[in-house]
Amino acid sequence: MVEKKDSSNKESKGTELMKAAEQMEQICIALRRDFHTYPEAAWNEFRTTAKVAQRLRKMGMKVVLGKEVIQPDFAFGRPDEEELKRQQRRAIEQGAEPELVEEMEGYTGAMAVIDTGRKGPAVALRFDMDCVEVQETDHENHSPNRQGFASVNEGWMHACGHDGHTAMGLVLTEILWRHKDALQGRIKILFQPAEEGVRGARAMVERGLLDDVDVVLGIHIYGTEEPYPALAGTQTGLYATTKFDVTIHGRNAHAGGAPQEGHNALLAAVTAISAMNGFLQDGRGAERLNIGLIRGGSGRNVVPADCTFCGETRGSDTAVEQRLFDRMKACVEGACRMFECENRIVSVGAAPAGGGDEDLAARIVAAAQQQVEDMQWTEPIQVNTGTTDDFAYMMKQVQERGGKACYLALLSKLTEGLHGSGYDFDETCLIPGVKSLLAALSCVGIMGDQR
Amino acid sequence: MVEKKDSSNKESKGTELMKAAEQMEQICIALRRDFHTYPEAAWNEFRTTAKVAQRLRKMGMKVVLGKEVIQPDFAFGRPDEEELKRQQRRAIEQGAEPELVEEMEGYTGAMAVIDTGRKGPAVALRFDMDCVEVQETDHENHSPNRQGFASVNEGWMHACGHDGHTAMGLVLTEILWRHKDALQGRIKILFQPAEEGVRGARAMVERGLLDDVDVVLGIHIYGTEEPYPALAGTQTGLYATTKFDVTIHGRNAHAGGAPQEGHNALLAAVTAISAMNGFLQDGRGAERLNIGLIRGGSGRNVVPADCTFCGETRGSDTAVEQRLFDRMKACVEGACRMFECENRIVSVGAAPAGGGDEDLAARIVAAAQQQVEDMQWTEPIQVNTGTTDDFAYMMKQVQERGGKACYLALLSKLTEGLHGSGYDFDETCLIPGVKSLLAALSCVGIMGDQR
Amino acid sequence: MVEKKDSSNKESKGTELMKAAEQMEQICIALRRDFHTYPEAAWNEFRTTAKVAQRLRKMGMKVVLGKEVIQPDFAFGRPDEEELKRQQRRAIEQGAEPELVEEMEGYTGAMAVIDTGRKGPAVALRFDMDCVEVQETDHENHSPNRQGFASVNEGWMHACGHDGHTAMGLVLTEILWRHKDALQGRIKILFQPAEEGVRGARAMVERGLLDDVDVVLGIHIYGTEEPYPALAGTQTGLYATTKFDVTIHGRNAHAGGAPQEGHNALLAAVTAISAMNGFLQDGRGAERLNIGLIRGGSGRNVVPADCTFCGETRGSDTAVEQRLFDRMKACVEGACRMFECENRIVSVGAAPAGGGDEDLAARIVAAAQQQVEDMQWTEPIQVNTGTTDDFAYMMKQVQERGGKACYLALLSKLTEGLHGSGYDFDETCLIPGVKSLLAALSCVGIMGDQR
Amino acid sequence: MVEKKDSSNKESKGTELMKAAEQMEQICIALRRDFHTYPEAAWNEFRTTAKVAQRLRKMGMKVVLGKEVIQPDFAFGRPDEEELKRQQRRAIEQGAEPELVEEMEGYTGAMAVIDTGRKGPAVALRFDMDCVEVQETDHENHSPNRQGFASVNEGWMHACGHDGHTAMGLVLTEILWRHKDALQGRIKILFQPAEEGVRGARAMVERGLLDDVDVVLGIHIYGTEEPYPALAGTQTGLYATTKFDVTIHGRNAHAGGAPQEGHNALLAAVTAISAMNGFLQDGRGAERLNIGLIRGGSGRNVVPADCTFCGETRGSDTAVEQRLFDRMKACVEGACRMFECENRIVSVGAAPAGGGDEDLAARIVAAAQQQVEDMQWTEPIQVNTGTTDDFAYMMKQVQERGGKACYLALLSKLTEGLHGSGYDFDETCLIPGVKSLLAALSCVGIMGDQR
Repeated sequence: MVEKKDSSNKESKGTELMKAAEQMEQICIALRRDFHTYPEAAWNEFRTTAKVAQRLRKMGMKVVLGKEVIQPDFAFGRPDEEELKRQQRRAIEQGAEPELVEEMEGYTGAMAVIDTGRKGPAVALRFDMDCVEVQETDHENHSPNRQGFASVNEGWMHACGHDGHTAMGLVLTEILWRHKDALQGRIKILFQPAEEGVRGARAMVERGLLDDVDVVLGIHIYGTEEPYPALAGTQTGLYATTKFDVTIHGRNAHAGGAPQEGHNALLAAVTAISAMNGFLQDGRGAERLNIGLIRGGSGRNVVPADCTFCGETRGSDTAVEQRLFDRMKACVEGACRMFECENRIVSVGAAPAGGGDEDLAARIVAAAQQQVEDMQWTEPIQVNTGTTDDFAYMMKQVQERGGKACYLALLSKLTEGLHGSGYDFDETCLIPGVKSLLAALSCVGIMGDQR
Repeated sequence: MVEKKDSSNKESKGTELMKAAEQMEQICIALRRDFHTYPEAAWNEFRTTAKVAQRLRKMGMKVVLGKEVIQPDFAFGRPDEEELKRQQRRAIEQGAEPELVEEMEGYTGAMAVIDTGRKGPAVALRFDMDCVEVQETDHENHSPNRQGFASVNEGWMHACGHDGHTAMGLVLTEILWRHKDALQGRIKILFQPAEEGVRGARAMVERGLLDDVDVVLGIHIYGTEEPYPALAGTQTGLYATTKFDVTIHGRNAHAGGAPQEGHNALLAAVTAISAMNGFLQDGRGAERLNIGLIRGGSGRNVVPADCTFCGETRGSDTAVEQRLFDRMKACVEGACRMFECENRIVSVGAAPAGGGDEDLAARIVAAAQQQVEDMQWTEPIQVNTGTTDDFAYMMKQVQERGGKACYLALLSKLTEGLHGSGYDFDETCLIPGVKSLLAALSCVGIMGDQR
Repeated sequence: MVEKKDSSNKESKGTELMKAAEQMEQICIALRRDFHTYPEAAWNEFRTTAKVAQRLRKMGMKVVLGKEVIQPDFAFGRPDEEELKRQQRRAIEQGAEPELVEEMEGYTGAMAVIDTGRKGPAVALRFDMDCVEVQETDHENHSPNRQGFASVNEGWMHACGHDGHTAMGLVLTEILWRHKDALQGRIKILFQPAEEGVRGARAMVERGLLDDVDVVLGIHIYGTEEPYPALAGTQTGLYATTKFDVTIHGRNAHAGGAPQEGHNALLAAVTAISAMNGFLQDGRGAERLNIGLIRGGSGRNVVPADCTFCGETRGSDTAVEQRLFDRMKACVEGACRMFECENRIVSVGAAPAGGGDEDLAARIVAAAQQQVEDMQWTEPIQVNTGTTDDFAYMMKQVQERGGKACYLALLSKLTEGLHGSGYDFDETCLIPGVKSLLAALSCVGIMGDQR
Repeated sequence: MVEKKDSSNKESKGTELMKAAEQMEQICIALRRDFHTYPEAAWNEFRTTAKVAQRLRKMGMKVVLGKEVIQPDFAFGRPDEEELKRQQRRAIEQGAEPELVEEMEGYTGAMAVIDTGRKGPAVALRFDMDCVEVQETDHENHSPNRQGFASVNEGWMHACGHDGHTAMGLVLTEILWRHKDALQGRIKILFQPAEEGVRGARAMVERGLLDDVDVVLGIHIYGTEEPYPALAGTQTGLYATTKFDVTIHGRNAHAGGAPQEGHNALLAAVTAISAMNGFLQDGRGAERLNIGLIRGGSGRNVVPADCTFCGETRGSDTAVEQRLFDRMKACVEGACRMFECENRIVSVGAAPAGGGDEDLAARIVAAAQQQVEDMQWTEPIQVNTGTTDDFAYMMKQVQERGGKACYLALLSKLTEGLHGSGYDFDETCLIPGVKSLLAALSCVGIMGDQR
């Protein structure tokens, strides 16, 4: 798809964009800290979406948002309407423009499009925006505490680096927009909600946003022991996953007087959970099953009529994961047959197995090595076993239509592991991250003089 | 139903019959020892049936046997045809008349009828004939060893007293037949197969043998600490029960290479058995569930395609027992839903809950106290919790049609508990047992001059 | 112990006391409605205790309360200190005298003693004071709503009649106090906290309050279909019970990345609960086991480090119940052995099996039939299978020392079953209840002229 | 370790040995068919061992056998003494020399040593001898049936190619022995018992046979779709495994009368098996657990006092497998704690994870490509997931001491999969197999002129 003709002009253009990136470091850090101060959990990113849209529209860009980028039928696991209203009010109190919040129609997420009007590839870049449900540490050594940008939203924290992703996305978009006359093709910049729980990507894919895309790029900050940032060409081996909630409903009875009249939902759950561990072996790949939460019953002396549990299945291969999910369902159904209960199994999030294309990754790393100075390089990484990311949906959508995908891993020194309450990355990785994406764009044919 | 008019003649008649019984003690003991030597497990009583029929027909009595007294559709848990053929040959080798064995058409059991031709009640008496599957002790102190009548059929032993029951039945029938001119009404003497596993009684009931019966009587030898025999008027509180076999069939697979291709019958059984304990509470009565045998799998490294288990449910009330049996089935079905297996649940025996009529029992005990000299008396006994006996089917059939039932307990000093390999009763209890039955018959209107 | 000598004076005295009771009907109903308005759940009865103590001390009686009547080591399942403080403030706001609340030292319950100084038996009477955790109906037909005395304490309601018990206790105590010169022996009136959850009685027994008592009497309102109140002489067949909370603690781990590092507390709980159903059969008596509440886990993708469940065991016999409780504990310990978890099993309430003495009950009913006019009589009732009441502790304590016990059942027309949100009894039963207790006292030797 | 100096002489020597191999094809086939006719399951290889020893000793070789090559403490899962005696008699009836059988002292297996007396490497070659417990098909198309060498030992069959391995071993040993003057170093040829159930290799390793070995070589016949034999350089990715038998012992009780007196071994087994599935996830590698056989109980109405089950754990990594095995044991122990049972867990076979050295494999394939004409070549194969082989013990023992290992895969057209009742390989693969081993020996420094 991409062939070099004459690399001399590209070099100079690349250099120009790289310099623009360097000049925006303080802006990038300030943006990141602002998002860090106001973290928003999945589907609640009203302030973040509004801030992204406001900033880009001010530059004159076309930005669509909310229901225009999200297919509601696939927006799984959203809070109820009342809670969403409450979160919208909170977002406005925390600085979101009311008109923008209203424009979203209850759905978060945004997309900016830069159409050069010139022939060229369609490239999508994805940045995820949501935080995790973790209470940020109050330890005085924690940088957000020392420098005054710790989370003000109790129980929510950017402990997975998405604040940095969004900041990089905004800086990159601004640079591309300012230099759009030197580019060709079309660029879609997706600001995705609800990556946690693997929900937002599918809702954007189902909305059709990736249907006309030739190349999709993503980036995620991970840890390294080295003191300086590094780039790994791509991530492969992402696991497929389904997140599910199971509700079992039986019938109450007095446990002393008439236990035989009860339909014991708690025992049904116990039986189902116990049985489903019987399906964790598959010669085709690795599996994961976790029932992470359970709650049931109404009183010590009442045969429990209700029991709810939440879990997830994972698989190194989509078929392996789907078999496990199907067997999990059969276990719930079988247990309900035993205990005369009814059940409801809701899938609240899912992602396929997948990974980026290694050939594209190699080209990107080569380009970055040439263009980005302040960085180290590592082998393409195989993500840790069991890792899931719904960017796999976007990659699969593009790959199945003949396109290419790459999910860059930006390695930075972390203070604590992902999702830890004392998590923090080294902000000096942000501009190298932006520059890596510029380098990646340079080798997929976006730079004007490449074809 | 039964009223005394003039008891003077009865007394003399009673006395005559009592004396006849006393004179047959040696015959009774010899019969018992013969049956003890050749014990036959449930549905294999070809020799015992033949001996019973031969003896009674020799006296000129009408005896029907085999398929004429058993409804084949309800003859649960019979051995397969090949094994039955083998047992028939064994019976003939051990002295059964070949013509009689042939006449049975593969089914054991017999009924003699004494029809006085005179108006009067129809009374049935039941004697069970089968042994248990226990290897008799070879201890030298064991009376059958000392006196040379220990079992010659390996793995089979009369360790539940049915040899004594059958001997008492033959002696009683002979006495009644010899004195039939002094009696009125009709008497059916049932020699029942397959009480162990609670199977034979129902097959006789379904054949209609109890449909025209006003009073049904049974007797069973139990233990007492006293040195002399005693009579308890009746047994009540017999539990309902179902004996069942469960076969689960799944699909083999190599446990190392392709475990996901297996449908694990062993895990299905494990899950079902574990779950069915969740139904052992009922405010309406007591329950019992036992899975007594399990066997499954074909090789250490093969996902098991087959698993079989055998069990029983019991309940102090028939409805309680039936609910438990139904839930047990649902557990098997639910587990097979989970593990993609098929199942077959076969009921191989069953009995309802029940007991004799206490008013009739009181009358019988009063009559026995008056007529039987060499005996003690106890209160009507409530059988031990959990005891089952398919005589309950016969009692229920008669009681539901307005008749009366009594299940006498003949108490004798035992050397060891029922079903023990060193079990033996004191043979001096046999004639008092026969006399108790004669006393019982005297107060239900069989003796000629009572009405 | 008790022998009538001359009943003539007693009759007149009895009549006098009966009349006094009749004159206090409006007071009794007013007291009951006051308690109904301010219901207090187990161990929170600060207002009720204070009101009881205040009223009786005003008459000049000696009343001990709080820590003086409760042995703290056996006061299971109390709220934490903070909550207790909150409830004490609430009680004061709702009219409890602050000095009395302080005097209690955090423990509820009271005892009044009437010592006649004359030789005679020591009799204890027990009245329970706590409410249940039920939200009272807002239906307009519900009498407390119509007449303005519905609960003002959200989620709490007198739906088990203890408001009536406490009111009867106060009226009875007042009558006895006023007529103490005509009595002999000593009378202890126990106002017990925390009957729900079967906790208060043991704490009073362990405090030694029953150690010098010859006769203990209790009364409980139950339902009848008849329009007028009735008395059943005693309750027997109360089940033994233990209420318990189980906490299992393991180790968190990321369910996708390192599941092997987790010690799964939820699976330990599932395994324990599943296994403990394997102990529900006992030839010696009936059993009940219910796990009524479960809660576990911290996140969908986190191996659960914590799981808590609450349950109860019951048994028709104390030994049967204790075996089941022991096996339940062994199941928790065994499961924790499997899953490398720790556990804590806390018994938060318990009662033995038991019942009143039937001979005393017969005497009481005979006396009541003679002395109480506006009442019906029924046979001694066997309580429903599975019923528990910690009054059994008090009865057992007295019976084991050679004394007698009787637990009267006062039958009244109910609007709904016990613990129902629309439960109400017919207040016309209260004075007949008081009179029944007076009749009971008359036949245990308290009336002055009996000895 | 191994360096080529001058390959010209080696070529000629190699060629000479290769020719010798070709000339022995009919002998090799005859040997294989003899072993096929008399298959012997693990630890019963008395005839096979005797035939091997007899043949080699006749040539003048030193052969040690039985207890001299097996460390008895590690000879897991042997039949009991009585059965071993029976099998020794059977072996003698089938042609084993009695003196040799006696020399074995009850243990099977043999080792021949060729010590050239010249400096050089110590190389071990391993050939496994045992059959599997499968009944050979009686289908007329099955070559052993058509050509009259089907198994005469009922229920036993060479369905895993070990008859071919042993035949190759004998032919190879003979060739080496005849040409020993042209060789250097020492060669140990191990004829291993009990590879099925992964037991024999460890018992030989523990006997010290591999302690002085620099290179260990093995060979196994696998399937290929191609019509002609092929060689894969080595196998890697063998799973670690433990084979275990669990016996649980509780206490009998009458299930109807006194279930509480039973200690239910069957429910303990059910609980343990159910729980152990909770440990099938490990981020470090793949796991397998299979309970392949279960048997328990003594009668339908008896609380089961005994239950036995047989299973295996596997893991792609030894630590992963050991953790699973440890957790399996903890599950059994925890369940026995619950049900008051005792248990015995016996490891009846084990193998570590492992594989050959890829550099040595590459050299061997290169040598074979040069020296063996009638053969194809494939990439080194990664064995199917879940495959285990106790040759891993021998490889590990040598590798840990700094030596090298290679497990050649000889690919032949199969009629049916390994362990199938219609399994057969194409005998034309045997001599190419021998030649491959000669080629392998040529590049580890055994051929005289290499160093």
